[in-house]
Amino acid sequence: MNLLEDLVTPYLVVDIDVLDRNVQAMSTLARERSIGLRPHVKTHKCREVARRQVAAGATGITVATISEAEIFAEAGFTEILIAYPLWTTRSRGARLQALSERCSLLVGVDSVEGAEAMARSTRHEGLSVLVEVDCGQHRTGVAPDAVASVAVSAQSAGLVVRGAFTYPGHGYGPRMAAVAAADEARALEIAAELMQESGAGVDILSGGSTPTAALTHGGVLTDIRPGVYVFCDAQQVELGTCAFDDVALTAAATVVSKAANRVVVDAGSKVLGADRQPWASGFGRVSEDEEAKVIGLSEHHGIVEWPEGSPTPELGAVLHLIPNHVCTAVNLADELIVSERGVEVDRWLVIARGANG
Amino acid sequence: MNLLEDLVTPYLVVDIDVLDRNVQAMSTLARERSIGLRPHVKTHKCREVARRQVAAGATGITVATISEAEIFAEAGFTEILIAYPLWTTRSRGARLQALSERCSLLVGVDSVEGAEAMARSTRHEGLSVLVEVDCGQHRTGVAPDAVASVAVSAQSAGLVVRGAFTYPGHGYGPRMAAVAAADEARALEIAAELMQESGAGVDILSGGSTPTAALTHGGVLTDIRPGVYVFCDAQQVELGTCAFDDVALTAAATVVSKAANRVVVDAGSKVLGADRQPWASGFGRVSEDEEAKVIGLSEHHGIVEWPEGSPTPELGAVLHLIPNHVCTAVNLADELIVSERGVEVDRWLVIARGANG
Repeated sequence: MNLLEDLVTPYLVVDIDVLDRNVQAMSTLARERSIGLRPHVKTHKCREVARRQVAAGATGITVATISEAEIFAEAGFTEILIAYPLWTTRSRGARLQALSERCSLLVGVDSVEGAEAMARSTRHEGLSVLVEVDCGQHRTGVAPDAVASVAVSAQSAGLVVRGAFTYPGHGYGPRMAAVAAADEARALEIAAELMQESGAGVDILSGGSTPTAALTHGGVLTDIRPGVYVFCDAQQVELGTCAFDDVALTAAATVVSKAANRVVVDAGSKVLGADRQPWASGFGRVSEDEEAKVIGLSEHHGIVEWPEGSPTPELGAVLHLIPNHVCTAVNLADELIVSERGVEVDRWLVIARGANG
Repeated sequence: MNLLEDLVTPYLVVDIDVLDRNVQAMSTLARERSIGLRPHVKTHKCREVARRQVAAGATGITVATISEAEIFAEAGFTEILIAYPLWTTRSRGARLQALSERCSLLVGVDSVEGAEAMARSTRHEGLSVLVEVDCGQHRTGVAPDAVASVAVSAQSAGLVVRGAFTYPGHGYGPRMAAVAAADEARALEIAAELMQESGAGVDILSGGSTPTAALTHGGVLTDIRPGVYVFCDAQQVELGTCAFDDVALTAAATVVSKAANRVVVDAGSKVLGADRQPWASGFGRVSEDEEAKVIGLSEHHGIVEWPEGSPTPELGAVLHLIPNHVCTAVNLADELIVSERGVEVDRWLVIARGANG
């Protein structure tokens, strides 16, 4: 096995000990609250990480697209939720039908028209759906009090309604996690009541995200779908969801240029992704030094700045950058280098990279 | 050949007529000013587009990384500039040496240490370098008045100094292009004078970018390296560098959810990239309607908003989104669908996707 210093930068590297600790911690959290865990595999897109999650007790996996579902079904995963309000054409319908015959599949829907298109484009039997409820992010999902109309339409169209899901995405903001977790519980509670009254099935009430996971209202939700927790990232560090030491994935990059209190490294937006929330300190952080910030990104340039007067690394030094949003960084890579105490012990293929369709 | 409406969204589609017009227009511009054209192929990463650029008169191609150079050399391109201040380890040195034996290679350098590391890590003969000069972007490159020390060190270390290059990246701002083009010319003029005095070779003075190309000072520069012009993107539209009708690449996406004056489509940051300059109107535009803005992106959600009261597309409709920055969108795709008047006529592999090292 190789020493990491022989690899050509830039590359993404996973600290396997930190990863395993993160996987265990989330499983323990879910078990202690008696809620299921359907981790979102769009974060890592790797069969080896998903296997670790299932081995640690995940009750299923979550994906965002039909092609991600196909890839993970092919890799042997049997309980898959597509947490997305799909618009089902004839070709998508045929793919959903094929998937539902090889694994236990749940699919999202958030409109009467969407439910009808899905029923039209699939043979009805076996396709189970969750209605997406908007709990405050205002991205997709119906308002909690409109959930029954979608559930009833889905049921009359011949789909099997199993419950509801929501995404508390507005928890991605400073001190917003507790509010979002409360909104999530309330929205799912209202949805469940209205769905029950209308005669729809409600055995699944799914929510969750990495920032809100520890605040989940276990009395309401049946499961959570966090994704980022396996690797963590600069957003989670800056939100306070995790510590620097919990970050399991970094981008190794070489210092190629320097001036004053800045250096430029050879990992830019084509390695880290360009995600930047308004509250973020920059475009990422640096594993070696909590004082350093990634203040700018071009495609192949990461500009790292230290406070005035701080020493900066030499030309040729290798730094480990923490992406703001690890999901988009992983989706830029073909493989992840797996490291155990500084030695490469494996390479994991990002099997679902680019699986958007 | 397929009708585009049968394809599964999201996908990137190139209008070949618009592309060809853009390729010709830039070649004409360069020819009329008697300057060379080394288009930056990091934008498209496709052999078919690079071949069109060379057929239209490009004097060489520009890349950002050694792996991009290797891929395009393998595809038969013979004149390649790596416009990046490389830090050359032993393994990178061996790759540069191999490249310089199969094509006419130029490499960037922006420090005495970088030049010495490059000379140490390669057999000296044949490796030609351009010194990178900072003309105002303050990313990489030495100040114009410091260029001679790098040139002289490179020459004494055994490299062949051929001239200088700069990138007027500060031209990416409203009404900044003319200022940046003037800065570019001035910086290269000073650099050339000092390099000549110090006895370094100065037969190449390279600059350019899509926003500044039409403003290039032909009396100073020997060539320009624009990239984005082949496809254009929302940034170029909003900077005024091109019109809506000049955009040759869009992301086809399906409306999956709608509410009030917004819809959500199935192309998010994993298709469009998350680039957003502070002056941009949002995360992209919509080919069908100049009034629509992409106001938010998640990984698989593009939130498109119309002015209050405007009609919005129906669920299931396909829109064509214009990415803010086309280079990062292309780097997320394995292939581009090539369309001629609405019919798929080809698929081009993004051969250098992810070639960051």
